[in-house]
Amino acid sequence: MKLQKYVIIYFMIYLDHAAATPISKKVLEAMNPYFTDDFFNPSAAYLPAKKILAEYEAAKSEIAHAIGAKGSDLIITAGATEANNLTFTAVGRNHGKDEVLYLETEHDSVRAVAERYGGTPIKVLSSGLIDLGDLKAKINDKTKLISVALVNNELGTIQPLAEIAAIIRDVKIDRLKRGVKQPLYLHSDASQAMNLLDINVARLGVDLLTLNAAKVYGPKGVGALYVSHDAKLQPITIGGGQEQGLRSGTENVPGVIGFAKALSLAKEHMNGNRKKYTNFKKILLSELIDYELINKKRSLDNFIVLCYNGIDAERLIYLLEGHEIYVATGAACAASKGKKSHVLTAIGLSDSEIAGSLRLTLGETNTEEQIHEVARIINKTVQQEKRRAANE
Amino acid sequence: MKLQKYVIIYFMIYLDHAAATPISKKVLEAMNPYFTDDFFNPSAAYLPAKKILAEYEAAKSEIAHAIGAKGSDLIITAGATEANNLTFTAVGRNHGKDEVLYLETEHDSVRAVAERYGGTPIKVLSSGLIDLGDLKAKINDKTKLISVALVNNELGTIQPLAEIAAIIRDVKIDRLKRGVKQPLYLHSDASQAMNLLDINVARLGVDLLTLNAAKVYGPKGVGALYVSHDAKLQPITIGGGQEQGLRSGTENVPGVIGFAKALSLAKEHMNGNRKKYTNFKKILLSELIDYELINKKRSLDNFIVLCYNGIDAERLIYLLEGHEIYVATGAACAASKGKKSHVLTAIGLSDSEIAGSLRLTLGETNTEEQIHEVARIINKTVQQEKRRAANE
Repeated sequence: MKLQKYVIIYFMIYLDHAAATPISKKVLEAMNPYFTDDFFNPSAAYLPAKKILAEYEAAKSEIAHAIGAKGSDLIITAGATEANNLTFTAVGRNHGKDEVLYLETEHDSVRAVAERYGGTPIKVLSSGLIDLGDLKAKINDKTKLISVALVNNELGTIQPLAEIAAIIRDVKIDRLKRGVKQPLYLHSDASQAMNLLDINVARLGVDLLTLNAAKVYGPKGVGALYVSHDAKLQPITIGGGQEQGLRSGTENVPGVIGFAKALSLAKEHMNGNRKKYTNFKKILLSELIDYELINKKRSLDNFIVLCYNGIDAERLIYLLEGHEIYVATGAACAASKGKKSHVLTAIGLSDSEIAGSLRLTLGETNTEEQIHEVARIINKTVQQEKRRAANE
Repeated sequence: MKLQKYVIIYFMIYLDHAAATPISKKVLEAMNPYFTDDFFNPSAAYLPAKKILAEYEAAKSEIAHAIGAKGSDLIITAGATEANNLTFTAVGRNHGKDEVLYLETEHDSVRAVAERYGGTPIKVLSSGLIDLGDLKAKINDKTKLISVALVNNELGTIQPLAEIAAIIRDVKIDRLKRGVKQPLYLHSDASQAMNLLDINVARLGVDLLTLNAAKVYGPKGVGALYVSHDAKLQPITIGGGQEQGLRSGTENVPGVIGFAKALSLAKEHMNGNRKKYTNFKKILLSELIDYELINKKRSLDNFIVLCYNGIDAERLIYLLEGHEIYVATGAACAASKGKKSHVLTAIGLSDSEIAGSLRLTLGETNTEEQIHEVARIINKTVQQEKRRAANE
């Protein structure tokens, strides 16, 4: 018991798995031979290189199978951001206005590109869920691409993609009847969903799906875009013609091997992890005091967004850091620029509520002992901060 | 002696270092902590993440110092292809005709993009060296970007970048006098040069320089583009705003740490390797028979391009493979598509000469014993093929 306590105090408690995950040991082991012995260029003509190409293609197929697709449906990229950027080429260079709709709570790598394409944001409800009425009202005959992340990266909100896909199906049927030829694609960034949700493209009803190895205990710098046969993309990187001509550059073989392994491990651990995080969340919410839970509805169980109104969450991060507890206020990339969260704004939080919001994202590095410890230290820290505020 | 021979016969002889290099042990060791313990998102707010960001920036600075630049001059990319694609954004979206010149022997990742921008090829001489007269004749007042690889990837030809830079300087002075405001940038893809040549951007006289970790015993999927303060680029991947807003996406920390280590090792081994390859080349050229050396002039010593006229080099690759000797006919990515080499065509080789051309690229995996063995087996194989041809 004493020893366990020591371990807890000695090691950090990482609660920011939505920002980054460590590579799991098995993933690194799978990658290692491809750094050294099996380093050949997959495009070379001799047998060992052809063997590498076959293994690369097999890894792509494995990733594809995890989402119910074929290897040739996947474009390997340097990460989710590139996959999201590539997605929007479906709209084409000479696109008109009104062709893009995107959820207002999307990650910057969708939002920035959507804005560049003149996209219109779809509203969310105060729950963080998509306002399906607003979606329906904004789809018109020019709409070509709708982008809605399966799981929001700040709140963990799970969007009803199948319902969105059904709406899109109706629009397509109606267009067909009226002879409107504009295609209509549904894209989803599944980066935050891969550890805990079914991401079968047919069941989700998507035409384009972004995957990210770095969020699933795989390597950084590797992602993929699933592209259905209907959607026609334009390459943003041309040259050697790799990835069916849609993304040139020598294949990142170790990265893709690691990605496939990481995704297969995620699937293996999915049920266990889901139960674990549900339990951890229950413990946390019962042991923590004086908070308001922000993400109450249809949220992934490893996302816990707490609001301590009147307290500065950035100070909390700093104080928790002193206990080697690492949490976030929002998306890491937005937070580093000191911008106010567009997600928390969109769900109607006030400035002081936003300033008091903490995002805890659970993951495979966490233990139940850590969760008790976290509750205890956050409670203590919040009380100290409240007293400090009262004395000022 | 017997044991050594055994080792030689047992292990492969890899002579395609221009296509891919294995990661060196020290590079992998440098990367390893960043896969596991130091996995944090560099944009996160807590101290361990800020430490990772600092180490990432330090690695970028180390890469930059190797070329005489600052870390903030570098945009990290997923490889040379992306860096080359990014380069051409300097021309701008609304570019006119005649703004791009590129050497006709450039790698596909420059050639394809240059063609997309309506670029005009600059001729090479039969030596593979740039035709400076043709360059001068083709520069006009609209020319904005000139792209010439420091070392050609099929021939190893070292282009006289300083001379090209001097010509460009004169053009710029003349433009200034006449009030012509169009800027003029020199870009060079240094992917094949990093192991053996000085790539100081000031001495080369370039405004943009492409680097590639995968060619210098570093990781695949990592490259960089040096950008001088004069050149204004447009991002091709937007989102979180990383890399000074020019290339969004969570930083590939292990990749960049590995790249920095690889480049520093390359510098450390440069003189030794240069001597070694000069010696190996001398041995090979003296022990081989019945060949014609294609890349006679100003070629990097680890590139040996041989022509066996009348013999099918693709069959040679296959036969040498039986001896675990791995060589190439040209660039791996072009070779895999069965295209006739545009480089060998440009230097005036006939179809049968091109069909009989082998590219041997030496590297750190090679030993002198291997070189003798290679000469012996290539000679034997070529003689067999000649007899076979005579009997047909």
